[in-house]
Amino acid sequence: LTTKLPKVGTTIFTTMSQLAAEHGALNLSQGFPGFDGSPALLALVEKYLRKGFNQYAPMTGVQPLREALARKTEVQYGQGYHPEREITITSGATEALFAAITAVVRPGDEVLVFEPAYDSYVPAIELNGGTPVFVTLDAPDFAVDWEDVRRKITDRTRLIIVNTPHNPTGYVWTRNDLDQLAALIQYRDIWVVADEVYEHITFDTYNHVSLAQHPQLRERTFVCGSFGKTFHVTGWKVGYCLAPAELSTEFRKVHQYLTFSTVTPIQYALAEYLNEPEHYKSVAAFYQQKRDFFLRQLAGSTFQWKPSQGTFFQNLSYQTKVPDYELAVRLTKEIGVASIPTSVFFHQKNDHKLLRFCFAKDEETLEKAAERLCQWP
Amino acid sequence: LTTKLPKVGTTIFTTMSQLAAEHGALNLSQGFPGFDGSPALLALVEKYLRKGFNQYAPMTGVQPLREALARKTEVQYGQGYHPEREITITSGATEALFAAITAVVRPGDEVLVFEPAYDSYVPAIELNGGTPVFVTLDAPDFAVDWEDVRRKITDRTRLIIVNTPHNPTGYVWTRNDLDQLAALIQYRDIWVVADEVYEHITFDTYNHVSLAQHPQLRERTFVCGSFGKTFHVTGWKVGYCLAPAELSTEFRKVHQYLTFSTVTPIQYALAEYLNEPEHYKSVAAFYQQKRDFFLRQLAGSTFQWKPSQGTFFQNLSYQTKVPDYELAVRLTKEIGVASIPTSVFFHQKNDHKLLRFCFAKDEETLEKAAERLCQWP
Ligand SMILES: CSCCC(=O)C(=O)O
Ligand SMILES: CSCCC(=O)C(=O)O
Repeated sequence: LTTKLPKVGTTIFTTMSQLAAEHGALNLSQGFPGFDGSPALLALVEKYLRKGFNQYAPMTGVQPLREALARKTEVQYGQGYHPEREITITSGATEALFAAITAVVRPGDEVLVFEPAYDSYVPAIELNGGTPVFVTLDAPDFAVDWEDVRRKITDRTRLIIVNTPHNPTGYVWTRNDLDQLAALIQYRDIWVVADEVYEHITFDTYNHVSLAQHPQLRERTFVCGSFGKTFHVTGWKVGYCLAPAELSTEFRKVHQYLTFSTVTPIQYALAEYLNEPEHYKSVAAFYQQKRDFFLRQLAGSTFQWKPSQGTFFQNLSYQTKVPDYELAVRLTKEIGVASIPTSVFFHQKNDHKLLRFCFAKDEETLEKAAERLCQWP
Repeated sequence: LTTKLPKVGTTIFTTMSQLAAEHGALNLSQGFPGFDGSPALLALVEKYLRKGFNQYAPMTGVQPLREALARKTEVQYGQGYHPEREITITSGATEALFAAITAVVRPGDEVLVFEPAYDSYVPAIELNGGTPVFVTLDAPDFAVDWEDVRRKITDRTRLIIVNTPHNPTGYVWTRNDLDQLAALIQYRDIWVVADEVYEHITFDTYNHVSLAQHPQLRERTFVCGSFGKTFHVTGWKVGYCLAPAELSTEFRKVHQYLTFSTVTPIQYALAEYLNEPEHYKSVAAFYQQKRDFFLRQLAGSTFQWKPSQGTFFQNLSYQTKVPDYELAVRLTKEIGVASIPTSVFFHQKNDHKLLRFCFAKDEETLEKAAERLCQWP
């Protein structure tokens, strides 16, 4: 069988998590919390399991969850998404991203991807016969160079993939970024996929501005979100896609044959849990404390950083000549701290001498990891 | 946004389930059990939820579940699939089917589909740029016409989709069918996707023979299975793909970007539950009783049937001139029994005057449904 994805190997997340396990290292590589979802949320899943909500959910998701999201989006964006026509529940945000890309991209289409980029975008584009066109975000701020974007848009550009707050850099898009994007695509047949899975995790004065809040963008955009990231239950794999009816119709045609529907009892539990807005509004402060704690503990190390604006990732830079991939492996083996070399998020694997650390861990783990990193020459 | 799937509308399952709900009809349309999974299995999910197994599973599935499947396949097929290299856990069998089709099919490829066919195969083929080529299974037996298959294989045939036990007809492939298939594809670059989600539901003297048990086929085949169908928990959406290492490698490249992984606590629960083979071996007798009960209650009705060989579906045929789609709607509205018109499973929607009834319901429901059907003129 000849491969359709010649460039794809084992994901860095699997590789580094396995290496961490082998060496008993603290695993700050793959982005998942080192703590559990709230007992109240787990109890809700048990409740709906026992109530017998164990058969197929509707293809679009269970009604209470779509309605809860409709209310949540109304609070967040002023204008809510319609629960019947504009909201679809998916098997994790990864499925939402794949379905949205598949709904739009055809052979020959170009898709703008900002890099460093999360690793699922490009294979999804390529499986649909599209060509990724890369716009580089440059250290140390990783802000968007809009002149570069303008130059790279052609008649074949069909889709732009936005990720804010941005993994792996932590950059949070500004209103100006959204205006720039809107102006560039205004008179063109270009759609947008917005990966907003870290929407509830921003720090300091940075605030998440959803593409859903920008009227001209909203009508062109598939907004992809994740309950796993927000509620510390990445293993439940429940996400969603918000999009205007016309786009949702096409999205659902794909989703229907990709997974059809998503785990029923968990959907009901999330619906009930979402009714308390504090459950998601408290997440930013929770992670800010972790970021601040981690960075305080790193004072005196040889690493440098700009504090992350959002997500639960912090990049640390270093001066030595070692390539970041090699350094990530050495830190795992020699001092027992696993991270992700940021180079893997660039299509040419350019070494930026940056390592990405996930700080969604308890303080003890963060303290130990920082202590070990402080000992690195 | 121009559609990539012009032929796709709302699935019949959504349409009929909604119509059933509107009219308070007994819903024997969409294929899901009217009863719950076993309390022991639900308790296992609670156990793993509470133990904190709530973060990402490995991309291939949790190790205990892959190992449990390795043992199960050894019991079933003599030779087990390798838990590290040949078994992948998916977000339902639908995802497994989509990923397998995507791993193989490229623009211009032809894919043989036996029809009537489950509705997800063709859109998955078309999204990958392939062309479905149909081989019709004819009433009343729906056995495969191997001369027809031979005629339809061309140099462009790249994949054949097999479904046994077959939904919607209940036909169970024989060893001879497998030999015929093996002979036809022997010297060609043709792969096989085997949808075997009803593997544990066969009746009378009919026995499921998996493509995994046929050495020449096994090396070319992606076998797709479902825990939801076997354990009465269709809403959990956990399935799997069994395939030789070379095929699994390509399968996983797609799965990795389609959903990445599947709901963790449920995977652990299924792993433990699978350790007792009686849990799946008892399923055939359980459903045979339901099929027999339903058919006994139908004695004296104007419908005719051949008892289903497998799956939890029974087709009933009738003599009047009404098209089956119209009859399905009328039965739902007028006597409160919803079914699926079998014509929808044919690409040209040919009317075979057949309705498919799901008998995965408690005896009370089956009795009431049969009673009402007996009153139909
Ligand atoms: C799906 S595994 C990757 C998790 C993640 O989002 C990350 O580490 O960037
Ligand atoms: C995924 S909904 C369809 C369920 C089913 O397998 C059927 O009714 O044929």
